[in-house]
Order: sequence, then C-alpha cells, then structure tokens
Amino acid sequence: MNRSVSRRDLLQALGATLGTGALLAAGGALGMLPASAQASTIDTARLGKHKRRIAILGGGISGLTAAYELQRAGHEVTVLEASHRAGGRVFTIRHGDLIDEIGNRQYCEFDDAPHMYFNAGAARIPSTHRTVLNYCAELGVELEMFINENKMAWVQDDAMLGGRPVRNGEYTTNLRGFMAELFAKSLNPAELDAGFSAEELETLRAVIRNFGDLNEDLLYRGSLRAGYASGGFLKHGEQREAIALRDLLQARFAGSALEANEGETGPMLMQPVGGMDRIIHGFLNKVGKRVLYNAQVQSIQLRDEGVDIAYTLGGKPQQLSADYVFNCIPSHLVTGLANNFPAEYTRALRHIRRGEAFKGAFQAKSRFWEKEDIYGGITWVNAPIRQIWYPAHGIHKEKGVILGAYDFAHGIDFTHMDQAQRVEAMLAQGEKVHPNYRQQVEKGVTIAWHRMNHMLGCAARWTDSYREMTSEESQLMETLIRPANGRHYLIGDQVARHVAWQESAILATHRALDDFANRLQEEAA
Amino acid sequence: MNRSVSRRDLLQALGATLGTGALLAAGGALGMLPASAQASTIDTARLGKHKRRIAILGGGISGLTAAYELQRAGHEVTVLEASHRAGGRVFTIRHGDLIDEIGNRQYCEFDDAPHMYFNAGAARIPSTHRTVLNYCAELGVELEMFINENKMAWVQDDAMLGGRPVRNGEYTTNLRGFMAELFAKSLNPAELDAGFSAEELETLRAVIRNFGDLNEDLLYRGSLRAGYASGGFLKHGEQREAIALRDLLQARFAGSALEANEGETGPMLMQPVGGMDRIIHGFLNKVGKRVLYNAQVQSIQLRDEGVDIAYTLGGKPQQLSADYVFNCIPSHLVTGLANNFPAEYTRALRHIRRGEAFKGAFQAKSRFWEKEDIYGGITWVNAPIRQIWYPAHGIHKEKGVILGAYDFAHGIDFTHMDQAQRVEAMLAQGEKVHPNYRQQVEKGVTIAWHRMNHMLGCAARWTDSYREMTSEESQLMETLIRPANGRHYLIGDQVARHVAWQESAILATHRALDDFANRLQEEAA
Repeated sequence: MNRSVSRRDLLQALGATLGTGALLAAGGALGMLPASAQASTIDTARLGKHKRRIAILGGGISGLTAAYELQRAGHEVTVLEASHRAGGRVFTIRHGDLIDEIGNRQYCEFDDAPHMYFNAGAARIPSTHRTVLNYCAELGVELEMFINENKMAWVQDDAMLGGRPVRNGEYTTNLRGFMAELFAKSLNPAELDAGFSAEELETLRAVIRNFGDLNEDLLYRGSLRAGYASGGFLKHGEQREAIALRDLLQARFAGSALEANEGETGPMLMQPVGGMDRIIHGFLNKVGKRVLYNAQVQSIQLRDEGVDIAYTLGGKPQQLSADYVFNCIPSHLVTGLANNFPAEYTRALRHIRRGEAFKGAFQAKSRFWEKEDIYGGITWVNAPIRQIWYPAHGIHKEKGVILGAYDFAHGIDFTHMDQAQRVEAMLAQGEKVHPNYRQQVEKGVTIAWHRMNHMLGCAARWTDSYREMTSEESQLMETLIRPANGRHYLIGDQVARHVAWQESAILATHRALDDFANRLQEEAA
Repeated sequence: MNRSVSRRDLLQALGATLGTGALLAAGGALGMLPASAQASTIDTARLGKHKRRIAILGGGISGLTAAYELQRAGHEVTVLEASHRAGGRVFTIRHGDLIDEIGNRQYCEFDDAPHMYFNAGAARIPSTHRTVLNYCAELGVELEMFINENKMAWVQDDAMLGGRPVRNGEYTTNLRGFMAELFAKSLNPAELDAGFSAEELETLRAVIRNFGDLNEDLLYRGSLRAGYASGGFLKHGEQREAIALRDLLQARFAGSALEANEGETGPMLMQPVGGMDRIIHGFLNKVGKRVLYNAQVQSIQLRDEGVDIAYTLGGKPQQLSADYVFNCIPSHLVTGLANNFPAEYTRALRHIRRGEAFKGAFQAKSRFWEKEDIYGGITWVNAPIRQIWYPAHGIHKEKGVILGAYDFAHGIDFTHMDQAQRVEAMLAQGEKVHPNYRQQVEKGVTIAWHRMNHMLGCAARWTDSYREMTSEESQLMETLIRPANGRHYLIGDQVARHVAWQESAILATHRALDDFANRLQEEAA
C-alpha cells in the first residue's frame, strides 16, 4: 500500500469512466434497469400446441410452477410429492404443523392466529425478483414490506465491551465516525489539489464529513445519529458518549458492519401477508387437484418416447407413464433412485453438493422487542444462533413469532443436539441480548434443513455463486440443463447459478418449459 | 490536515473511550435505550381529581391529545377548531377532500379507494417515537412498515451524466468503492502498525474492503452491489461498469449520499394502514362530539379564576368561559387575536418563526415504478421537487398515489405558481426520472403549508433544533411552557425543541397536562 494517495492513483480513479458514457448513452432510464427487470413469462399458446402427459416430480416452488404453466397450456399433469405437504423449502410453520426432521419430528404449538407463523425456509422477496413477484400478482398473493436492517436492533459479541449488546445504529455510527476521521486525516491536500478542482475537493470533504458526522475540524466527537443520551424532543438532545474504536473492532460484526444493506437483500424486501406459503397456496388453488402427497418416487426409466416412473403411494407400488418429466427432487436424492440416466448425466448430478442450514423460532408471550423500539429487522450475535429476527407484521398485537437462530452457513453446531438442547442453546445465546428472553419466549421450533425428510439438504452448492464457474463445472451444468434423453428435465434452483432464491428456481423452470415448447414445435414440424 | 494518520492521532482514536466503560457498566441492555424509550403516559386518576371546564383551542394532534386525556379524567372539554376538519398538519388527502390553501383551493379527484391517499403532512413514524406509537396501540390504529431508503429508487441531477438518472444503489456503490480505494491507499502501514495490533489492522482493512467491495488488492473495480449488467440468476452475474468518481461528484446528492438512512428517519419507520389521519380519527372516536368545527377564536381574555374565549361559529359570535385553556393555535396567529397576555408572554410568542413547506402528489394510472423494481422509498432529484416518494402500500394494485414534490426547506419555488404551473413543474422535473411520467400521472394536488387557511405556516422555527439554544431563547421557551396567568397553556410542537414531529407535539401536551395536574393538587391543598 502507498503511504498516501498519489496523483496517478487519483487521476486513475477520476478518469475511470470504464465505459460509463457509452453505457448511459445507449438508452434512457429504462435501459439501465438490472437484467432482472423484465419478468419472465410463458407463452401458453406456444407451450400448449400439442397435448402431452407430464409427470412432475416434487411439489416445491419449481414443480408447482411447471404444473401451473403446463396445466394452463392444456397438458395432463401429475405432481408426485414425497412428503405430506407441498412447498419444499417454502415452508411456513403454524399451529399444529408437523416439522418432519429425521430424528427430531415436532408439531408446532404456536397459538392459532394469522400472524403467528414462522417462515422456516424462504422468507424474503427482493424487489428485483420480478418473476416471483409477477406470480404473486397473478395468483392474488398480497405483499407487504419486510424489514431487514434496523438500526435499533442489537449487535452482541462476547469479545466486545464484556458482551454487552449495542444498538446497530450506535455501533455503526461510531465506527463510521472514527473511520471517517482517519480518512480525513490521511488525505493529502497537496496531492488532492493536483487531481481535483476546488469544488470537487469540497464535495469529497463533504462526503467524508457527512459519512462520519464529523465536526467542522473533520474530527469525530460522537454523533446524535447514535441516539440521544437524554432529551431530543422537548429538551435539547444530548449526545451519547462515543464507544472507542478499539472496542468496536473487537466485534466480529466489524468486518461487515459498513456493508450492511448491500447485495441481494439491499434493494427492498417484501413478504406475502400471512406467510411465504401463500405463494404455494396460490399455485395449489390452480393445480392442487393434480398433486399426490406421500407419493415417493422409486425409479425413473427413460424410453425413446417417454419416461416410466415407479413410485409408492401410502406404501403401495404405483406406475406412471409420461411423455415428459420435470424433476425438482434434490439432485443427491435423484442419484439414489433406480434410473437409466446416461453416465454423463449421473456424473453431473453427483457433482452438486448440498448446503446445510439451521433455523429456530419461538412464540413470544409479549412483543418485548417493541418496548425496546424495535419493529422488524435483525440483531447480529457472534454465537451459533447468529441472528434474531423480529417480525415486520402484527405490530402491537399481544404476541408474535421471533426467529431465534439462523445459521445459514452450515448449521452444524445445532445438528447434533436434541430438541431440548437446541432450545436451551437458543435461549442462552438470546438472553445475552434480551435480558428477560428466557421468560418471554416459549414453544420453540427448530429445523435443520439438511435433515428434513425427503430433502436431506438445503440449497444446491455449485461453486461460489459470485465467481465464474470453471469450464468443467459449466459443462456439468450444461449437461443438466439439457433434458436427459430429451425427456427428463431437472428443474429448481439446483440448475441455477444463484441458488437458494425462489426467483432462480422459477427461472430455471421457465428455461425448461421454453426448451420443452421448442421440442414440441420440432416434433410437429 | 496531516499528510497521513499520525501515531498520536491513532492512539487518540483508539484510546477515546469517552466514558464508554462507565456508561456500559451502569446498566444492562435496557439501560442503554434512547431517552425516548419509555412512552409518556398520563395518570388519569391524578389528572381528574377535581373537575374543571376546559377550552381547547385547535383540533390538531396536540389539541386532540389534550381533549382525550382531559375528558377521560372527567373534565368538561370543548375543542374549537377553526377549519372544516380536525388534524391540522396531520392531513390525509383522499377523493373529494378540500385542500383549503388560500389562493389555491382544490378538491381532490383521486379514485375513491382505501389505498388512494396522500399524507400531505405527517407521513412517517420512527420506531423511537414511543408516545405516538403508544396512542396508536391504545386507539386501535393499525400500523405497517414505511420504506424511506430504497436502493432501486433513482438519483437524478442535471449536472451529472447529462441528467440521466442513476439507481441510488448504483450511485452509492460506486461512490463507496472509490472512496474506500482512496482510503485504503492513504493509510500508512508503518504508522498503523504502531497503533494497532495485527488482528486490529486486519479488521480495519476488512472494514474498508467490505465498505467499498474492494478486490484483494484493495482496488475498486466495480461491484455486483450496483446491480447486474447481465445474468445473475441462471447465468453468472456480470458486473455493471463503474461510473467514474468525477461524474459521481457532480451530483448535489454526493454530499449526503453516504449519510443515507441516518438520523430521525434512520431507525425504522411506520405508517398507519389507510393514512396518517387514522390517528386523528382514533382520537375523534373518543372526543369527536366535543369538537366544534368552523369555530374561529377571536379573543382570549385571562381572568384570575379562568379564561373567557370569544369565537365565531358559522360567522355568529359565541362565548365560552373555561377554567383552563390548552391552546395549539400557531403562535403567530395567537398574537393576532385580541388578548390580555402578559407582555413577556406576547414577546415570547412573537419570537417563534414559522417554516414553509410544499408537497405535491399525483394519482398514477398504473404503478409504473413497480415495473422498474421500485416498491416504496424515495428518489432524489436536484430540482425544486427534490423528492419522489413511491407508496409502501397497495403493492400490485392497479393504481397508486405518488408524491411528486416535497420541498421541506422552504417551498418558495412553488408558492407563487398557480395550480396549473405547479403541476407542470412537477411533471417537467419528474419526467427526467421516469420518461413516461407525464402520461402516467394525473389529478395532481399541491399544498403550500404556509398558505393553508387557519395555519399560514408549517412547523415552528426556534433555532436549529440540533444546537443548544441561547440563554435568551431558553428563557423565551420557558415563558411559553409556563401557563399564562396560571390558566392558559400553549401546546403543540411549537413549544418543543424538535419540531415537526407528532411525538414532540404530544409530549409537549403531556408536559402541560402534568403541570395542570400539579396545580389541581395545589388548589385542593
């Protein structure tokens, strides 16, 4: 690293148009929408020109999307769902629901009320996920705002300030303040003068000053953004004293504190009113009669002119012959079924790894977080529970459901525990943030997705979805995108680059439907 | 400014505990709540020990709060409201409503539907405003989330990139990236090593890297946080090309871009379902029968044992004798009434200036912003309209109401225009952001608060509410907080330090009610 900003560096930064002009000149405002901006839609007329018998394996969001579009186009669809419920990883847990985790089956004992639910799988819809949003509109699924980042929520780390929780806003305000002060001090005016006009320099200083809420001397001396120590409405608001930079840096949260609200969960998030499974029920309103539950596929045999499926229904062997199959069964379970897939197809299926994830939730006897000025959002804890989510709905009602743990990285810490141990771990870590947590919450539910019956894994894992695939991986993906024997389509987020989102699962299904429509045209030609 | 960070500077920053330890040692998590955390409540039993006749002048949020609490305590209350409606600056405009701006009376022609409303005054409730939230719970006012910052909304400045709008998230991502790169380059490792441990240094670099999404060499080369140029779901997401720092700095937005989501509107915001005036109607459900409309006060005469009010009702002179008065008429109008206030009281009233503010809104024929991935939030425009707000409610409905201008600083640009000119100005500035704006919106309404009948001003202006008052100002404020002649209370946000929020208006009213309760005790003793 250089000692300070060199003239060359600055001029490089200033001159780094990197095609900006060309890009912007190319179109108006609408030309700058992200690639996701146009919802993907299916041409029903084209898809339905020739009627076929379709077997859909798995009643997750991608299977139901396929069933809906294919039925609408006039095909004869049958959905085989292995479990007692549709939706797969779109799973809203309410009063009386079974959580069919192998080795830890539970029934949810939350109060029976519309707002008392827990989205144990998919929970958020970014505003850029236009295709799932389009289905919400089409299926009459009412949406409301979801709150992800809340500066009133807490940050807690045993290594920081003796483990005392700090408001997210107080933490980030102080960190920004000290960072901005360091930044302002390290800027070299002589060098800067060479690269910037006086006006630009003034703007740069304003950016830094406002970023950190520095005083006129560009020093950080605390900020009202961190909350009032006293007053603020009737009396002059007094600043809270700053937390030292050294203390702030002790929290694991530090590294990511200033990237908050970026990326996929940044733009704006929504949730269906009443639970994420309102989308599943929207599809089931259309195709529910075509779904067989507890229908477990045993064998997939490709023929030149179709596919033979053997499955059990309530334990009894059944046969289904179809012209085409759309399959969203998790890849690592597909490879365990009797099949006659080409060797290359099987090799590709075997390449996909599965993620592990753990979530837990409680019914809260009162909405104690609202008494702490918290309405929605996430508390970050440097402990295996990682996060606490407060509901964005049901404001001021008597009770609510609170997410007590979300280990999205591996969930291993909780896997080997029994239910009582999991609940105790969630309580012990949660009460470091909310002193009366243990008295306030009850009826915990937990879910380790990698142990869920008929799934045994969370989202597919290719390579890091933000990096380019190797050419070998791309080839494997391409193999799975093409239908095996021209008859068997693998669908779901497992054949997308950006896994674990409903949008990807649906778009992968649309891609398969487009390919299917093309084949129908060719067959007819 | 120093060339780079000196050892002393760093040690100062590191050692700047500024009392952190003492503060945190003092209490648990609940001890760290902001000063606003406890909702202010009124002890009805104490307030109602001795029945009195109360005149309440003005049916704004503070007058209605007083009426509600005093009636509940058993007093005989009469509210005199000068206009045809209650609520004052809590004003939700719907189909058929009159906007009684002097010189620009309008009737709203929006479609008659529950979601087709415009909060022309108060529009947001921060989660820290516990007392107004407490009333919402008590009065059965349902709340929902409000979205303030939305990275998918636009930033537009004629001086930047030829006036083309840029997504807020694309703008801020690029600005953060270049700033972080400059910051990383200007840090001096030798000096840093002296002040920081290796682990702390690593964390500091992580803070900077993640703030700007820098690459491993701490350089900014674009970021997926700015949105995908292509792909992202099924295919590898390609980065958008960066916008040059020099271009970014041209926008007036630059100075405040990195302070977004801070301060009062930062923590979390809510709105009542169906419009902000649901709060007003919550109060009116309790005290509506005690409100006289078109009742215009002419004279306030203090006596030793009470107050005589002269007013007109439908133009006819009326008299009201009360034991006590609670007055939320704007201070600059109070001084124009016949009165016998003490000279010092009048001098204090005359000290308060009034703010000016302008808002405008349209009915949109379609929710075109949702086609641009925008659900709620604010677009920033460097033009007199300043902001465009997209509704956080009514998602995916056919139409919506969009705020087309909010000049909160002065509103002067629009004041001298007639209605057609105002609408044209809003269209001309709005279509720089949304190309088909002019075709998409209709039935504009506008409101210049400083010209509204019976108000003639927006929020009170003392000194900058974030600075300490001078001792002279404090004395003037104290004069107005004490009841004139022990009988006349001035209430509303005009006697608070932090004006223009419902919370301040209500807290100022509670303070007056507390004082009143004390006097009742003394009278009885």
